[in-house]
Amino acid sequence: MDKAKVLFQPDGKRSEGQPGESILHLAQRMGLDLNSLCGGLGVCKKCLIVIKEGGSILSPLTDTEARFFSEGEVSEGYRLACRTSILRTGDIVVEIPFESRTGQMKLLASGIEAKVSLNPAVRKALVQLRKPTLKNIEADAENLLATIKEKYGIRFGSLSYEVLKRLPAALREGNWNVSITIRQDEEVIAVEPNDTTARLFGFAVDVGTTKLAGYLVDLSKGKVVASASMINPQVPYGDDILSRITYTNSNPDGLNKLASTVREGIMKLIGDCCAEAGVEKEEVYDVVAVGNTAMHHILFGIDPEYVALAPHPAAIRSSLNVKAREIGLRISEGAYAYSLPLVAGFVGSDAVADGMATEIHMSEEVAMMIDIGTNTEIVLGSKYGLGACSCASGPAFEGARIKNGMRAATGAIESIWIEPDLRIRYKTIDSAAPRGICGSAMVDALAEFLVNGLIDNTGKIRVEKGHPQVRRTDNLSEVVIAEKGETVGGEEITVTQADIREIQLAKAAIYTGASILMKNMRILPEELKRIFIAGAFGNYVNPENARIIGMYPDIALSKVRFVGNSAGSGARMALLSYDIRRMAEIVANKISYVELAADPSFNKEFIKAMYLPHEEEKRFKNVMKLLRNAT
Amino acid sequence: MDKAKVLFQPDGKRSEGQPGESILHLAQRMGLDLNSLCGGLGVCKKCLIVIKEGGSILSPLTDTEARFFSEGEVSEGYRLACRTSILRTGDIVVEIPFESRTGQMKLLASGIEAKVSLNPAVRKALVQLRKPTLKNIEADAENLLATIKEKYGIRFGSLSYEVLKRLPAALREGNWNVSITIRQDEEVIAVEPNDTTARLFGFAVDVGTTKLAGYLVDLSKGKVVASASMINPQVPYGDDILSRITYTNSNPDGLNKLASTVREGIMKLIGDCCAEAGVEKEEVYDVVAVGNTAMHHILFGIDPEYVALAPHPAAIRSSLNVKAREIGLRISEGAYAYSLPLVAGFVGSDAVADGMATEIHMSEEVAMMIDIGTNTEIVLGSKYGLGACSCASGPAFEGARIKNGMRAATGAIESIWIEPDLRIRYKTIDSAAPRGICGSAMVDALAEFLVNGLIDNTGKIRVEKGHPQVRRTDNLSEVVIAEKGETVGGEEITVTQADIREIQLAKAAIYTGASILMKNMRILPEELKRIFIAGAFGNYVNPENARIIGMYPDIALSKVRFVGNSAGSGARMALLSYDIRRMAEIVANKISYVELAADPSFNKEFIKAMYLPHEEEKRFKNVMKLLRNAT
Repeated sequence: MDKAKVLFQPDGKRSEGQPGESILHLAQRMGLDLNSLCGGLGVCKKCLIVIKEGGSILSPLTDTEARFFSEGEVSEGYRLACRTSILRTGDIVVEIPFESRTGQMKLLASGIEAKVSLNPAVRKALVQLRKPTLKNIEADAENLLATIKEKYGIRFGSLSYEVLKRLPAALREGNWNVSITIRQDEEVIAVEPNDTTARLFGFAVDVGTTKLAGYLVDLSKGKVVASASMINPQVPYGDDILSRITYTNSNPDGLNKLASTVREGIMKLIGDCCAEAGVEKEEVYDVVAVGNTAMHHILFGIDPEYVALAPHPAAIRSSLNVKAREIGLRISEGAYAYSLPLVAGFVGSDAVADGMATEIHMSEEVAMMIDIGTNTEIVLGSKYGLGACSCASGPAFEGARIKNGMRAATGAIESIWIEPDLRIRYKTIDSAAPRGICGSAMVDALAEFLVNGLIDNTGKIRVEKGHPQVRRTDNLSEVVIAEKGETVGGEEITVTQADIREIQLAKAAIYTGASILMKNMRILPEELKRIFIAGAFGNYVNPENARIIGMYPDIALSKVRFVGNSAGSGARMALLSYDIRRMAEIVANKISYVELAADPSFNKEFIKAMYLPHEEEKRFKNVMKLLRNAT
Repeated sequence: MDKAKVLFQPDGKRSEGQPGESILHLAQRMGLDLNSLCGGLGVCKKCLIVIKEGGSILSPLTDTEARFFSEGEVSEGYRLACRTSILRTGDIVVEIPFESRTGQMKLLASGIEAKVSLNPAVRKALVQLRKPTLKNIEADAENLLATIKEKYGIRFGSLSYEVLKRLPAALREGNWNVSITIRQDEEVIAVEPNDTTARLFGFAVDVGTTKLAGYLVDLSKGKVVASASMINPQVPYGDDILSRITYTNSNPDGLNKLASTVREGIMKLIGDCCAEAGVEKEEVYDVVAVGNTAMHHILFGIDPEYVALAPHPAAIRSSLNVKAREIGLRISEGAYAYSLPLVAGFVGSDAVADGMATEIHMSEEVAMMIDIGTNTEIVLGSKYGLGACSCASGPAFEGARIKNGMRAATGAIESIWIEPDLRIRYKTIDSAAPRGICGSAMVDALAEFLVNGLIDNTGKIRVEKGHPQVRRTDNLSEVVIAEKGETVGGEEITVTQADIREIQLAKAAIYTGASILMKNMRILPEELKRIFIAGAFGNYVNPENARIIGMYPDIALSKVRFVGNSAGSGARMALLSYDIRRMAEIVANKISYVELAADPSFNKEFIKAMYLPHEEEKRFKNVMKLLRNAT
């Protein structure tokens, strides 16, 4: 019982640490994503953490740290995890900032988050009612509404039907003392006997085409208490948006099947998080869901068929408030599921959430937010105006349509580089024997091949260079990354010419979207002061390599920021603050949608963007300089 | 095809009549409840009808009718059904007024109805939307809401979730031309491709403890198009309110079982009415339900346990608006079920509906409304103030707890009288061989026995009088009504001393309620100007005999009016007019509830009311004069 309780944010994971144990050790013991190259020697200075609470029960600042951190950083609580150990029992809250993430936790469940003041859409109040007598018989509902108006000054119209059904029993069980949950100061959505006001939880979920990420949040404290993620269980029905939509309209009951599949997935996340944090599902009173328009429509049981057909109108653009049980979420019976507003048929509430998390709508300078996924959304602009577009980048970055492609999991080759002796080297996740290649390594492969002249600027493998790992058989060129003897399957792992084309298509889609959006908004490249790259993939890719292959406009790397799952962050913000929901409604309305297909230059731009980094070399001055220096 | 189409109101039954056929013949052919003592000879003048439409295709007024009706009545359309025959093809609407009802249709499905102007809570509009283009992509929901605001001047907030799910397909199917159904000018609750504005139906249902009566109403024309009734399928779970409530809390899942039982019953009525009128269930966009508080709670899935416990608070007093599908009614998916407000734990929305139908809340003079059922509600007052109480009159009038008791059905003895030679005579429903005695005959029995001295004013059978049909065996006195040889079962049908006590208890409960209510409201007997008697039972009982046994205060019979199922009438009014709903909310709030059990004089009053007609003879001056003249 002399252990200290440690809560890691923003993951919401908790553990107990022995006195003497370092935070790095504890984090590694829990499998958390915290960088450490030197293995805890205090040398690499990668294991940055921020102590949010409990600094006094931790070992004092070391000389190493004092030299490394600025005064401001020290006062913010910055430490090196390997140099920080637990002294005695107590409560500690540790934040692992984004710069300390290695990407080991491949389904990234966290992201940057703008600061919001705690003002959730739901709140609780303890209410003492008058007991009715023969002389003063008052119906239960009127008794409750009159009491909260008279005694507590809360004015609103209605009790939800679920509350009405539970009210008589709750009043008697609590001896006329009940806790009510009020939503948006309008509706009583829950009633419980006695004082349960300290137990108020909400759940935010990012419904991606490929993954679901969920966060259980204590709404009375504003803290994430647990998080979980999983592959979107709809994946077997199609690995991109269009194939999912096709499934819904080419199979009997297809929409219901996909809807219930993702709803069950979300329930699984809720169940896992509740179990981890010791919370009952009935104590979850609010849900915020974000996702692209197709995922949104399917989740809410709305036919997405027309989203796939030009001009791709959504069924609804504004935010949605639907009883959670209507979409199969069995939490507090009267709880609602809220969706942030959408922008258009292919720019969903996830992009709006990205915008809220990166605060691009409040930025003085022009910024671009690229949320890379099977569908990539781009939001561009500043407080003076915002535009958005959607790029069908496809699932290649997730390993699909790549010969030896796989998702980021144990044994996936996650980075590739070429040594000075031109030998191609790789690193796998968990340092396991290689099983395949994941998206971040494909980006590395193209960049390294280009820099080292193994491919030309059209992406064509230069067999003529005679590199020992490059070969051509049956008219098929490929680069051998791992030999037969090294791999789990006993087969070579290669990057084929076709694989390179897939990555070119994906990166060209993203770059074309960015450049057409800039053109439409009359924003010049030099005006672009910041690029946020979001999405699980976005956090692990080597930013330099991504720039070399021309995935995003060629700006200084210092202006590129990886923000992780910022859609999930935006969802959490909307859970914590009703003001964010109101703001999101305004912002979503302000974002003008640019339909790429309607732009006459789209095809020409797309073809030019297939080049590495681009056919118009002047657009990539930094990269071209680098390439010229290399060759 | 040369037949005329005839619609009978307020039953909503339709038929076709041949030229030459009389309306009386047609009504009898359809089994409708239309009085005729002389068999169509134009002598008894009992078959009054009112021609609402199609007078010109009927035979002209006969001399008999011209002499019988006043000029005003003729201009209102009054005719004798036996003297009115069809001349040629066309549409005829006939109303059978209450004075022409014999009570043959024993589950009375109609009632008086105050005139209301047609203003239903739901209405339809045809809307032509802009088709979205690549240059102007608008989400479907925003497109619809903006269009109805701009082009049609309709302003309101929301689309129901059910509409959102159907909207994309409906818009394309109708080529951007859809019919919307708007509820209370607030919410779009249905959307259908193309013009369906002529098809707008609603359903009103009176949920009685013993019977369900439902009416399908064409809300675009304000007409009942079909009606149906059935025994409440909950009856096997208990024949009165308290036994139903006991069932809900003494059986696992008891509430759900009773709730789904009555919901299925209502769906059966809706299905039958829709089939009869050629209406799809999806064309029913509104439901109004009325019932006593326990029936209301069970229907809406609210635990009625506490209604049975002093001080009997309801869970909610005000009106309820719940999605119809939430209570298992599978009609238009977005439709609501509306319940009129309640008054108290034992005075339900049926009493409020009675009040609306009898317009007691608008009356200058003091009136009393007695809705007789297993539970009897009494509303008393005028436009200057209203009070209400509830009497546990029990199911004796429905034949329960009576030795040879039965419900009003073929073979039931429905009236009993004593001939000048003192022989006891009876009449059965459908003139069939007797199977038992129903409530109206039990009232006759007590009154006739009293007038003829077979019982004394305590209800005791006077065996000593030596009436040949009175006998005493094994300490049990009884009066033989039908001999062994006459009955279906081959057993005598008798009225026992215990049966007489049951009826005394029931009538004493009603009278005690009326008198305590009057005392509480400081209303003197001479101030009472009108008594409305409602409920299926109320329409068949002999009013004089009911007064003789002291069931209601002793006022002139001309001031007593039988109004049939006025709860059902009030429900229909609320379906036809949203104004009635607003009015009902005000009226229900205005009705002060009198808890009989809280009145210290209740027991004393009840015991006095057990006497026939009453222990205090001065309260029944008219009856006492009659009794003195008889003996």
